[in-house]
This record gives sequence, C-alpha cells and structure tokens, in this order.
Amino acid sequence: MSSKTFLAASLAVFCGTVALRSDEGMWLYNDPPRERVCAKYGFELTDAWLEHLQKSSVRFNSGGSGSFVSEDGLVLSNHHVGADALQKVSSAQKNYLRDGFYARSQAEEIPCVDLELNVLQSIVDVTARVNAAVTEGMSPDDAVKARRRVMAVIEKESLDATGLRSDVVTLYQGGAYHLYRFKKYTDVRLVFAPEQQVAFFGGDPDNFEYPRYDLDICLFRAYENGKPVKAPHFLKWSQKGAAEGELTFVSGHPGRTERLLTVAELEYLRDRQYPIALAYLKRREVLLRSWSERSAENARRAKDELFGIQNSRKARDGGHAGLYDPALMESKRQQEKALRVKFAANPAFSAAAGAYDRIREAQMKIARDERLHRLLELGHAFQSELFDIAHILVRAADEYPKADGERLREFAEAGRASMELGLFSDKPIHDDLEILNLSDSLTYLSEQLGAENPIVQKVLAGKSPRIRAAELIQGSRLRSVDERRRLYQGGAAAVAASNDPLILVAKSVDAEAREVRQRIEAQAEIKKQAHAAIAAARFALEGKGQYPDATFTLRLSYGVVKGYTSGGKAVPATTSLGGIFERSAEMEGRPPFDLPERWLKKRRSINAAVPFNFVSTHDIIGGNSGSPVVNRDGEFVGIIFDGNIESLVLGFAYEETQARALSVHSAGILEALRSVYAAKPLVDELVTGRRK
Amino acid sequence: MSSKTFLAASLAVFCGTVALRSDEGMWLYNDPPRERVCAKYGFELTDAWLEHLQKSSVRFNSGGSGSFVSEDGLVLSNHHVGADALQKVSSAQKNYLRDGFYARSQAEEIPCVDLELNVLQSIVDVTARVNAAVTEGMSPDDAVKARRRVMAVIEKESLDATGLRSDVVTLYQGGAYHLYRFKKYTDVRLVFAPEQQVAFFGGDPDNFEYPRYDLDICLFRAYENGKPVKAPHFLKWSQKGAAEGELTFVSGHPGRTERLLTVAELEYLRDRQYPIALAYLKRREVLLRSWSERSAENARRAKDELFGIQNSRKARDGGHAGLYDPALMESKRQQEKALRVKFAANPAFSAAAGAYDRIREAQMKIARDERLHRLLELGHAFQSELFDIAHILVRAADEYPKADGERLREFAEAGRASMELGLFSDKPIHDDLEILNLSDSLTYLSEQLGAENPIVQKVLAGKSPRIRAAELIQGSRLRSVDERRRLYQGGAAAVAASNDPLILVAKSVDAEAREVRQRIEAQAEIKKQAHAAIAAARFALEGKGQYPDATFTLRLSYGVVKGYTSGGKAVPATTSLGGIFERSAEMEGRPPFDLPERWLKKRRSINAAVPFNFVSTHDIIGGNSGSPVVNRDGEFVGIIFDGNIESLVLGFAYEETQARALSVHSAGILEALRSVYAAKPLVDELVTGRRK
Repeated sequence: MSSKTFLAASLAVFCGTVALRSDEGMWLYNDPPRERVCAKYGFELTDAWLEHLQKSSVRFNSGGSGSFVSEDGLVLSNHHVGADALQKVSSAQKNYLRDGFYARSQAEEIPCVDLELNVLQSIVDVTARVNAAVTEGMSPDDAVKARRRVMAVIEKESLDATGLRSDVVTLYQGGAYHLYRFKKYTDVRLVFAPEQQVAFFGGDPDNFEYPRYDLDICLFRAYENGKPVKAPHFLKWSQKGAAEGELTFVSGHPGRTERLLTVAELEYLRDRQYPIALAYLKRREVLLRSWSERSAENARRAKDELFGIQNSRKARDGGHAGLYDPALMESKRQQEKALRVKFAANPAFSAAAGAYDRIREAQMKIARDERLHRLLELGHAFQSELFDIAHILVRAADEYPKADGERLREFAEAGRASMELGLFSDKPIHDDLEILNLSDSLTYLSEQLGAENPIVQKVLAGKSPRIRAAELIQGSRLRSVDERRRLYQGGAAAVAASNDPLILVAKSVDAEAREVRQRIEAQAEIKKQAHAAIAAARFALEGKGQYPDATFTLRLSYGVVKGYTSGGKAVPATTSLGGIFERSAEMEGRPPFDLPERWLKKRRSINAAVPFNFVSTHDIIGGNSGSPVVNRDGEFVGIIFDGNIESLVLGFAYEETQARALSVHSAGILEALRSVYAAKPLVDELVTGRRK
Repeated sequence: MSSKTFLAASLAVFCGTVALRSDEGMWLYNDPPRERVCAKYGFELTDAWLEHLQKSSVRFNSGGSGSFVSEDGLVLSNHHVGADALQKVSSAQKNYLRDGFYARSQAEEIPCVDLELNVLQSIVDVTARVNAAVTEGMSPDDAVKARRRVMAVIEKESLDATGLRSDVVTLYQGGAYHLYRFKKYTDVRLVFAPEQQVAFFGGDPDNFEYPRYDLDICLFRAYENGKPVKAPHFLKWSQKGAAEGELTFVSGHPGRTERLLTVAELEYLRDRQYPIALAYLKRREVLLRSWSERSAENARRAKDELFGIQNSRKARDGGHAGLYDPALMESKRQQEKALRVKFAANPAFSAAAGAYDRIREAQMKIARDERLHRLLELGHAFQSELFDIAHILVRAADEYPKADGERLREFAEAGRASMELGLFSDKPIHDDLEILNLSDSLTYLSEQLGAENPIVQKVLAGKSPRIRAAELIQGSRLRSVDERRRLYQGGAAAVAASNDPLILVAKSVDAEAREVRQRIEAQAEIKKQAHAAIAAARFALEGKGQYPDATFTLRLSYGVVKGYTSGGKAVPATTSLGGIFERSAEMEGRPPFDLPERWLKKRRSINAAVPFNFVSTHDIIGGNSGSPVVNRDGEFVGIIFDGNIESLVLGFAYEETQARALSVHSAGILEALRSVYAAKPLVDELVTGRRK
C-alpha cells in the first residue's frame, strides 16, 4: 500500500505538473493522452503497451468492437454486436440468437455469413498529401472531388504495397487525414453465445439503466486458411477483474460524436429539436402501446416499431436531460468564447472567426423549416408503409431519368439495388396498423400546421383524419408488389396516369417536400463548411493533444470503475451474479425479466457473490459496444455493453458526475461459463490464453 | 312483418311530415321529442308511457343512473356506479368490490353507507317566478344573489308542502328554471355484484372500446321503514332483450355537455387546448409507464396516477378526433351563422348578437395565458405531492386571514375541513416517484418557457432539472405531517420564516400563478355572461322543442341498436357471452383479460350464443352510466355502461356515424345470473317482477 503510494507520487513528479483533469477523451492511438494519464493516475502509456492493446482490439464491420482473448484467435464481443451474425446462421429449427450456442469442439464452430473483422496495424499521417491535392482557386465542389481522388489513390497504393485493408480517415472535420491499415479476417466462426434472455436481461425497461445483470457476450474465432489464426496479440484474462476505483482503459470504435457543435446549435437541440422529436416519439409510443395491449396479434404487428420508438425515446430523453446541465452548457460557452477570441486575434483564422455567426444564422433558418421538414420530408405526417412506397414511386419516376449526380441522394445508382429490394419486398403490410398510424399522423399534421393550412386541406380533402386514413389505405392498390413494379417500370407516364389515392396524395405534397428539404440542406451545407473552418483553425491552434470527434476508428479511453448518484440515490459500481435472480424475482419472472431454464437449474451452483456488471467513467459512445476494458497490465477485466441514461449526453460533451459506461465483468463471465454453461474447455482457453 | 310495416306507415302519416332527423337529444321529460320520435319511428310517446319510465328511473347521488326492476324495490345500476358503495361496505376480510357479492336471502342484504337514491316525481316550470326576483337596474352580482335567494325559497316551500326533495334546476344557461321533486331513498342495501374482473373485463386497454364483454352491473334494494319498498313503477324485464335495428329509449342522468360552445371555442379546443393537454398526458404516461416497468414496487406506486392519466388521455383523444370531423364543425358554423342573423335582426337580442365576438376575444386572451396557467396554476410545472402541499401552505397563510367571500374558491370556509383532511393526510409519499415526477415537470417547464425565462431560472436556481428536483424533494421536511401542521397553524409568520426549499419555490412563483389565474378567470367570466346572453336569446327564439345542455337531471334519449364502421372495419352491434372466453384466450388470460374462477368453472354451463353487450345510437354522456335501455313496451332490454371512443365527441355535438352508447344486454345478464352465479331467486324476481 505504502510502496504503491510512493510509486504513484514519484511518477506524478516524473509526469510533470499538468493539472488534474477529467477522464475525458476518445484518443487516437497515434496521439495518446500520455501526459494526462500520467499526471492523474501516475501511469505511463508506453509504446509497447499501446501496440499490444491496439493489435488485440478488433473492429466488427457490422458495427461494434471486440478483442482477441486467446492466441488461438478467440474473439470476444457483445451478444448484441453478434446478433446479426447469430441471426444469419440460425434456421427455422435452430434459433441461436434466442437460444444461444456453444461449440464444444472446433468442428462444431459455425462459419458466419459475411462477417468481417479488422485489426488496426498502423496509422500514417497523410494530411499533407491530401491537402496538396487541393490547389488555390479550386471551387469547394472541385476541392471535395480532388480530395476524394487523392484519398482513393493513397488507399490503392497502400493496399497494393501491404495487402492490408487501407482507409484514409478524415479527422477533426478535415483538420487531418490519417491512413489506417487493417488486417482483415473474413473467415469468422461462432463459438459461444448465451440465451438472448440473459444477454439482454431486463429488455427495454432496463435498457440504458443501471444496476444491470446482463451476460451480453458472444465469442467467435478468426480463421485463416481453414485454421484458427495464431493471434500475435491477445488480451490476457484477469480472473479477478476490475475493482472499484481502479484505473482501466477502453479500446474500441466509438461511432459518432458531435462535440464541436456550437452553443447556438446545442441550444437549438435543447430548446427545439429534442422537445419536438420527443413529443412526437411519446405520442407514437402511446399510440402503438395502447393498440398493442388490445390484442396479442396487434402486439406482434407493432413490436419492432414500438421497440425502436422506445429505444430512441429513451436515448433522446437521456441526451436531452444532459443538455439541461447548466455546467455543461456554461463550459461550452466559455470554450467557444475563448476560441472566438483567439480566432479574432489572427487574420489567418478569419473564416473561423465568422463561422459561429454563420452557424447561428443557418440554425435560425433551419428552425423556421424544421416542423414542415419533419412532417413532409421525414414523413411524420404520413406514418404508413404504403405511403412511403407511394412517395418512393413518385420520386423514382422523377429522379431516375436524371444523371446519377443530379439525383436526390437516396436515388443514386449505387443504392438502386437495395432500394428496389425494399420497394418490391413482399413483407406483410397490415391494414389496421396502417390506418391507425396514418390516422394519427394526419391528426398530427393538422395539429402542427393548423386545420386551415392549405397542405392540410389538400391532404385531408374535407374529411376527418380517421376517415381519410381508412379511405386512403383501403383504396390503395400498392399492397400488390406487381402494382408497385408496374408503376416503377412504367416510370413518369405510369405514375402520372395512376389514380391510386396514395400516389395522388404523395404527388400533391411532393413539391413542398422537395422545397423544404432543399432549404434545409442548403443551410446544413453552410453549417458544415463553417464547422470545417472552425475545426481547421482549432487544429492549427491546438494541434496535437486534442482528440477528434468519433469516426468509428480505434480510440483509447481511460477511467475508473466508479458508482454515482441518480435521483438522489447512490448507485454502487458493481452488481453480482446473485443479483439477476433477485431482480427476476422482484419482477415476478415476467418477460423481459424471465431467466433461461439453464440459469434456473444451475442457480445453486453459481457463486452469487461474483461481480457481474460494473460502471466506469470511460468516455464511450455507440460503436464502443464490445470494447475490451483492460487494467494497467493490459489484462482483460471487462467488456463494454451499454451506457447509462445519463451517458447519453456524451455525444455532445464528456460528463463524469453521472455518465457511466456499463461493462460485463471478466470474473462474472468466467463464473457463468463455468457454472451455468459447463464450458470448461472455453474457460481453460480464456484462463490460459490457448486452446488445449 | 307486413302488418308492422303498415302500422309504421300509418303512424308516420298520423305524425305529420316532419323531416327525418338524427337520434340527437337528451330530452326533458316535460318537453319530450314526441314529433321527432313519431315522425322517424312511428311511435307515440304517451303521457302514461313517459310517466312510467320516469318513475322507474333512479338517480344515484354518488353520480350515475339506475332503474327499478322489480316491484320489491330492486334497483339495477352499473358495477362502476356501485363501486363506491361496494368499497364502503368492504373490509380487510371481505373485498366485495373485487370479489363480488350475492345476498341469497333478504337478511343477507348489506345496508350501504351514505348512498342516496332519487326518483323524479314531478317537474314544475318556475322560470317566471325566478326571473321576477331580478328587478331592473340590479347589478349582475346582485342579480345572481337574488336568483339564488328565490330558488332557495321555492325549494323550501316545496319541501314543506310535499315532503319531497326539491331542487330548482337551471336550464338553457339560465333560459329556464324548473323545480324537480324527488322521492328520496336513503336505506339502500346491496343485493348482488359480480367480480370486478368481469364487470370491468379488459380494463384500461378495452376502456372506451368496442366490442366489449363486460358484466358491468350491480343490484341494490331500496328499503323504507326497514322493509323493501313497494315500487309503484318498475321496468318489466325483457328476456329477449334488444334486437338490432330496434327502437329503444335511454332514461338517465347525463352529467354535463357543452353543446353551445361557439365555433371559436371549438376551434380553440381542437387546435390548442387539446393538443397541449394530450402531449402533456402522453409525456406523463410514457414517464410513469417506463418507470413502472422497472419494478413491481414502482408499478404499485404509480398505478392509480397512471390509470387516471390513461383514462384522461383516451377520453381526450376520442373527443379530439371528434372535433376533427369537418361535418361537425361545418354544422356548428352554419348553426351559429343562422343564429347570428336572427339575433342581429332583433334589437331585443343585441346582447346575444355581440356575444360571439366577445367570446372570441376572450378566447384569444385566454390563449395567450393558457400555457403559463397550466404550468403555474394547474401545477404542470411542479408534479409533486410535496410541492402541492407547500403551495397550499403558502396560500392558506395568505387566504384564511381574509373574509370568506374574498378568498380563492378552494379556501372557502365550507371546504376547509376537507382541505385540512387532504393536507394532513399521512398517506405515503414516495421520494423516488416525487423526484421522477418533479424532474420531468421541471424539464417540461424549461421546454415550455425556454431555459432563459426568469421563472425557469428562479425555479432551477442554476441547476439541471434532475439535480434540482432531487435537492428540493430530499431537502423538504413537508413529508412530516407535524411540520405541515406547524406551518399551517403558524400562518403567515411561520411560512415566511420557513426555509423549506419547496416552500421557498412555491412562494417564489405564487405571485405569477395568482396573476395568470386572475386573468384567465376574468376572461372566463366574460365568456360565461356572453353564453348566458346567447342562451337566453336562443330560448326566447326557439323555446320548446330544443333540449338544454346536460345538467345531471333526468333526460330521455332515443335511438336504435346499430353497429358501425371504425378504422375501415365493420363493428357488429352485439357481442355474445362466448366472446368473453375467446377474448380472454386471445390475450392469453393475462390481466386485465383474466376471468374469475367462477366463470372458468362454469364455462360449459353458459349458453355462449346469448347476447352480452351491444351498441346503440343513443345520445348519452358521463352520468348516464347505469341508465336503463327500454323498448317500445317500456321493458328493460339493457343497461348503459360506457360509450365507444368515438362517442367522446358527444360533449360538443351529437354524432351518429360512429359514436355509440355501450350497454349490457338484458338476456346476457339473466344468463350470467343463472348459469354462472346460480342466482335463481334473483333471476325469478327479475323475470316475474316480484320476490317469491
């Protein structure tokens, strides 16, 4: 104890006198937070330590993170990251997603369909070369094209030279360009998955909440040439796992943050965009939920949509609450003020100095159109799958005759096949749900624009929303895939000749929808350019020592295992395996709090005291799912699987009073594999780092 | 068949040539719709027929309707009308409300606590005498007092002369005054109630919906001098019951309608008040619901509030959808236009002629304050029981020192005891629910007024809503009843000295809350006077032949048993007893679709084909619950227990395309009593009209 204190103290001296800061940051591996970590925790991030963690980290191209956990190519990620792969290897007879899977021998491991894993090998700064492609006097459009071109050349050269997947990544909104080279694994096989019940125990009610009791893991094995790969780097498994207050690191692929939003944009989100979006989501949630309760069949029909709505609502409610933190907003204000002073002081940054006002003005213009844009272009006024089909048909007839580059984005030639796949899908469309949704959204349209508005009057045609919705849905022939095909192939002439009521409505609002979209996109482009100017100036001023917004590339976060206070109650850092039984009993075992048969049977064999899930202060976001949590020794102590509801503000700013990353504990995973799944070979492989 | 057709045809000739109208109207018994019924259905409402139905009809002073169904004083109403009485005779050992009750002998009948039944004996028009009390030049205030005085005199005289309960009823917003004399029964005993499960089968999900399968009945017996009364009038039971398309009548006590609202008021409700209220209800519903799902204890704590919110939300959603019916709005517009032309043509109606504009102006002023009024005065910004207590304490200190007449309504001396009962109640207050509610409502406050608003800044004190809510709730000492008593008894001085955080917040917003309330009430008074002017003019012009807005006095409605179309689907008029088992199975027997043990056991004995519930076109509203439905022969064919969701517009206007009254069928009641409850004596009494 005293020697540890001494060590920390001496290292702190060694590290210099940098002020203690928060655990903020999703750091680049080629610009790691050495000084910060050293100053705050007295720990040195050596090159060897970093390389080992980098090369043990795995990116799932399906969206998510993972890590090698044995030299025989065993890769650990979340059950929800593996869900897509599990679904694809399941059949009518074998539902591995729901029921879980365990390959007791190598022969039983199941090859996944189209799952690609990437392991980052190296990073090269290619900023100068990319920027050199842009010559003075180029129009912005040409500059974009020139940059794209040189990036493609760099990627091609690198691939040819190394055989590695090579991506040029845009960082700091264009402030820097780095070439990332990945080793690619495409033969990936399924080794183990628990039952979805226990992987996502607590379902939607406990989603984004804590305490939690989820075994959200899934194990794969990477193969090459038909054999398990010998992984040059993998994480040693810590049987003890993470302890409270312990410094740990998260290595993973955060997807997207917007930490550079200006105060004007954040206020806009807080005061307008989020309230409108949330009221709309809550309205739809109540609608679908009360309808679902009226019959099991209704519930089945609305299930996916309802879950999606609840998930978004929860995520946004959390983010919105975060934006109401005055400390957060004040720090953004101070930061912005300081930057503006610096920009104003240097003529080289004149574009950046004016950018804040340009953003504010653009935001005000967007504000004027936001409501109409949501209604007409995002379809909030027309919640109906048949209407969506009608609108696509109307637009396809207009768009496809144009040159590829002139079309609306979603009609680009590259996306045509998948667009047609959706358009001609014969997935069932339920008239009752269609009428319910359309009826409510037409009412919403009237409420939002006022009953006397010409668009409303045109759409409702003198009828009440519920009568009109029934008439439109029942009168449409678009539930026939043949009819869709006929209109699609017939193009503009066929669409013009159609008297399908939904086609007529879609046509009647399309001009207004296009106009409002165009206005919004023009302002978004102004904002984008202003942001690029700020980012470039900021990068020039601050350069290294900052971290860029998340880009689904490998990042390093540091932090500690730590509880927090929510709603005035202390929330402890760690839960234990026994807690899942208590939680299930508390909820009377009703779904989604029911436990798999196997867990119920093995209850007595499980050591209830073993840690199960824990929270930590790491700076994470969506895409970090499956990221390994490692200790100072680089050992695996846990796996990220969620954030608490307070962490949903992390898209805008780091916060460490309440925002927490959620992980499954390494000791809990071992205990479950051992006591519930009797997966001794797997346990041995994890503990020893190799297959027997 | 042909003779019936002939009879109808000949009667139609006899009835004259009045155009066929809808089944609209909640008609006065002393001004019944003789011509309309005769013209449309060829049926003559004779004095004897009317008197029999009137004197068989019963008013429940707890709010609801009923009827005598045997000469031995048996009174039938709804289970939900009887719920209060059932609750009051229940104990920890015997939960009659939940489990039902059946007195197999007279001795077993249980005397109800404070239940009063009224039977209307006579109606006398006293308009002239009431109006004579108001002399020229009286101020409006004095006029109100003079009217109240003469009404009290008339009531007293009548009571002394007849011994009957005598109430002067204000009709047509003051257009007419009628003296209603009631025979009163105060010894009322409980005879039969089914289980709540089957009385309110389908619970909230099926509330206001159809098809339904509810045995929403409760039987009482009226006693006098310790013996069952010999009822001079009672309804003969039709074993066949109501058939589709059959003309029937409803005799009951509709509580309140607002059919005279002007177009400006209706548009305001549709475009502003309802959308704001509904968004707020849905927000609260989602909040409490997702919290409830996190634990059984949460669910228990939020249950009553959540049910109340869902019930209001459903009712308002239904009413709101009704207001979107362009036909309804257009007919209101036409009606208003026609009246305004008539008023303008006659100088005697000048007050009425200008009234529409006065209402519109007042409505516009209310619109400006509506949001703030809801937030501060209706408490939408401060959803917390502890805050409510704080606000009452702050106001009580200000109000009680004033003269009785000068105080805010809720602090009138007459209500003081019940106010104190609430204030000093030791019912549990849950901190977690308090923080959840307050945190969300403070966020709502910020959203509605904007984060920069001075009220918001004052209330939040530089904290985020969730931090502030926790701090306020945890810092308050008002959960102690003693502390409340201390502040209440200490009056202004004690409240001024208190540094309880909730008292401080309540004080800080009280001035603004009072001001906005005063502004709203001033405009409401202007509207009330304008409505009285319109009603008086209208009554002078149209006089008899119209029906007044509902006033919880006996009214007659007519209509037919008839299905409808909803969401494009045909909804048949009648369900059958077998349907309840199918519905329960469809919902996998989960509450509120579970069936009582008794029903499950007796399933095979029940004739599944017997009609259970039915819908009809009668013009009803809350208060009609328990009203008998009778056929041309004055026989009991059903009992009203609900309206469908489309009927929720009936507060504003009659509608008969989709709006329907819901009843329990007389045949279904008999079959259930016979086959499920083995209540032969009761069945015999209903069938023969007397006890054996």
